[in-house]
Amino acid sequence: MTQLFLVSAGPGDAELITPKTIKAIEASSDLVAYGLYIELLGEICRGKTQHDLPLGEEVGRARKALDLAAQGKTTSLISSGDVGIYAMATLVFELLDNVLAGKENHPEWLNVKIEVIPGISAMQANSSAAGALLGHDFCTISLSDLLTPWETIVKRIHSAGSGDFVVSFYNPVSVKRNWQLDTARDILLEYRPTSTPVVLGRNLTRKDHRVRIMRLDELKATEVDMFTCVSVG
Amino acid sequence: MTQLFLVSAGPGDAELITPKTIKAIEASSDLVAYGLYIELLGEICRGKTQHDLPLGEEVGRARKALDLAAQGKTTSLISSGDVGIYAMATLVFELLDNVLAGKENHPEWLNVKIEVIPGISAMQANSSAAGALLGHDFCTISLSDLLTPWETIVKRIHSAGSGDFVVSFYNPVSVKRNWQLDTARDILLEYRPTSTPVVLGRNLTRKDHRVRIMRLDELKATEVDMFTCVSVG
Repeated sequence: MTQLFLVSAGPGDAELITPKTIKAIEASSDLVAYGLYIELLGEICRGKTQHDLPLGEEVGRARKALDLAAQGKTTSLISSGDVGIYAMATLVFELLDNVLAGKENHPEWLNVKIEVIPGISAMQANSSAAGALLGHDFCTISLSDLLTPWETIVKRIHSAGSGDFVVSFYNPVSVKRNWQLDTARDILLEYRPTSTPVVLGRNLTRKDHRVRIMRLDELKATEVDMFTCVSVG
Repeated sequence: MTQLFLVSAGPGDAELITPKTIKAIEASSDLVAYGLYIELLGEICRGKTQHDLPLGEEVGRARKALDLAAQGKTTSLISSGDVGIYAMATLVFELLDNVLAGKENHPEWLNVKIEVIPGISAMQANSSAAGALLGHDFCTISLSDLLTPWETIVKRIHSAGSGDFVVSFYNPVSVKRNWQLDTARDILLEYRPTSTPVVLGRNLTRKDHRVRIMRLDELKATEVDMFTCVSVG
């Protein structure tokens, strides 16, 4: 039985990478990741066979990692943040569910031993930059409607508002999705005061990090990009 | 200006403590923490002045840490998990808010430079033990009604149900609070199938860790203690 590590590279700062992540990478012969994360990890990735599939090929990365591990290669599949939060771990387990349900024919994947190594996610970097934003009940909502219908996302934003949760938005905008965040803001304004603080953290804990704090009624999708975590206090 | 580090000791496994946490403790002369966390951190706490206030004296610990830092001592205030998630960071910033609002007379606290160092929280350990429970939208709810009225908590559980969030319950039970989790289960069952998976993670990532997976309709407060994180998938 061979090993697949699902590894969390954290929000960016090398000092926020855990020893458990380092150890998994050291134990691996093969690394599967979007190239940027391998750069973040630096020296310890040297000498490993690197499989760098571009953004958008997330499922391809999950398949590749299962294939390599099934072939007997100790493999690390690397995500930024926490691999279990809007990241690669879900895709790997969904592929395994497909095999169990007979929708895919990869029995060899079921022989792979999987260890999930948690890490620090963007909302936590955002919270620590702003003080203690997640001190009370909070939720996360992804604004990407690639896999979730937009009506479901809208329902969740209403629930976040009615439940008075602190909300962190993941995938707030992309080149093609440029209006969802404005709609999310308008929904939250039905429940929250206009002065509710919003923290925009871009590339947090990295060298070029930027934190901005504004009022909820000042939030605009045009102020945000796909590297930004938006938390509404 | 002196330094106060708000430090996250993670869920228990020494390999899930970040280098940033270690560095903060090394830089400190004084540590404020519940003694168990100092034990978890081990060797690096040797030779530091340790201020071990018992459970229940959380506000006292936050005051002590601000006092020590204001006296010029580089201080680490240590929480398990993530110091920003249901932990000490909130209490520190609430005390500072009190000073700014004129409710407390400790102007010296405002001269303390504060750095919050995020870490891995219980829900993340729970999720990684179970696969990838937090892969989609999720929320956290504390069932402790010491500071939050029970009606507010009930409203949030309904919101978590209507929004179809994965829910992690923090502070699920205590000696005195032995019925809240059963009520929370009954509320969620208004929205979710009885077969919804529940992960009970006790002391996760520690030597005596225990993971149990059950159906939502099997969940009972009597199966859970205050060291357990309950996540409903």
